[in-house]
Amino acid sequence: MKLYNMKAGMNPRRVRIFLAEKGVSLPTVEIDMGKGENATPEFLKINPLGKLPVLELDDGRYLTESIAICRYIEALHPEPNLFGKDPLEQAFVEMWDRRMEHDLMRPMVDNFVHSSPFWKGRRPQVAEVAPIACESANAMMKLLDGELASRPYIAGDRYTVADITAQCALLLGKNTGTPLPEGLPHLAAWWGRVGARPTARA
Amino acid sequence: MKLYNMKAGMNPRRVRIFLAEKGVSLPTVEIDMGKGENATPEFLKINPLGKLPVLELDDGRYLTESIAICRYIEALHPEPNLFGKDPLEQAFVEMWDRRMEHDLMRPMVDNFVHSSPFWKGRRPQVAEVAPIACESANAMMKLLDGELASRPYIAGDRYTVADITAQCALLLGKNTGTPLPEGLPHLAAWWGRVGARPTARA
Repeated sequence: MKLYNMKAGMNPRRVRIFLAEKGVSLPTVEIDMGKGENATPEFLKINPLGKLPVLELDDGRYLTESIAICRYIEALHPEPNLFGKDPLEQAFVEMWDRRMEHDLMRPMVDNFVHSSPFWKGRRPQVAEVAPIACESANAMMKLLDGELASRPYIAGDRYTVADITAQCALLLGKNTGTPLPEGLPHLAAWWGRVGARPTARA
Repeated sequence: MKLYNMKAGMNPRRVRIFLAEKGVSLPTVEIDMGKGENATPEFLKINPLGKLPVLELDDGRYLTESIAICRYIEALHPEPNLFGKDPLEQAFVEMWDRRMEHDLMRPMVDNFVHSSPFWKGRRPQVAEVAPIACESANAMMKLLDGELASRPYIAGDRYTVADITAQCALLLGKNTGTPLPEGLPHLAAWWGRVGARPTARA
């Protein structure tokens, strides 16, 4: 297997942290979106949506979508478990992973896409979207702070894929205009915990 | 178990079709977003995000996020299989389900939210977003048409949860300004196939 990667990308980082938690190392191919390498005819044969990461399988097929890649890795390398150990835990891990994706990561990405010069000419930008997205991201961080008052990790008492999604979102937000606000001590403590893991810089 | 439902909602429909495909019937509680019933203090205790559907479990916990609910139902009722039979099929079903969610359903929802009088005063509206979202939805439908030239269903040769996500997206799009465009015969044939299933009106 081979991972098409972009070092600075939020979604490739989700997969890299996941692999590091599993202790799995894969050969990687760097694709530079800044240089448009994700929009070449060659790359669009690998992923017609032009997105990263992509996992090239041993049979030559290409698997895209970060969480689909992570779940496949979990099937190949079950330990340490990151998606839940039984159907009930799996259900709540997925619930929280999707909440992190839809209600934290998505508005942070929207703020970035609609406000950063990086995206000018690459994606349509509507300046008015950015403050609305910031407000949504901040509301979700406040809600999370309340949740984390009574448990150490996003989906329960241990680190799971939902934490990986949330930490990659917060890292993007930190660098693009939706940083962790003051006055959210439980979320700040969680951020310290996940940031201290040896895999956080993967 | 008990399903908090909204008859007209796109996400509740995903779960209802999934349950119908499984032959599972659950007691439901109707929540009317039009009347703000999803924003009452009572409902926010059930789902702090104010969204539907929600599955109330027998232990009293509340499971949210359509696909987390569907995957939990799949674990309880494995047949007919709708998420894939082995890790490899599961990976590609999830890849396509997420592509349908992020690149088809999401722009259709964005167009609806930013252009429909229904959302006025309920969610911030930025008119300029709607045509951009329409363009993304149309691009994805065109891409899907090409994919469906060589297979009958979204993720392969049989009906899966990825078809349910796509058909619920297209049904929303049909009613809210991103209908199936002319000139996409393979997507139109697929739409006919999924619409003819006895579960399509669930």
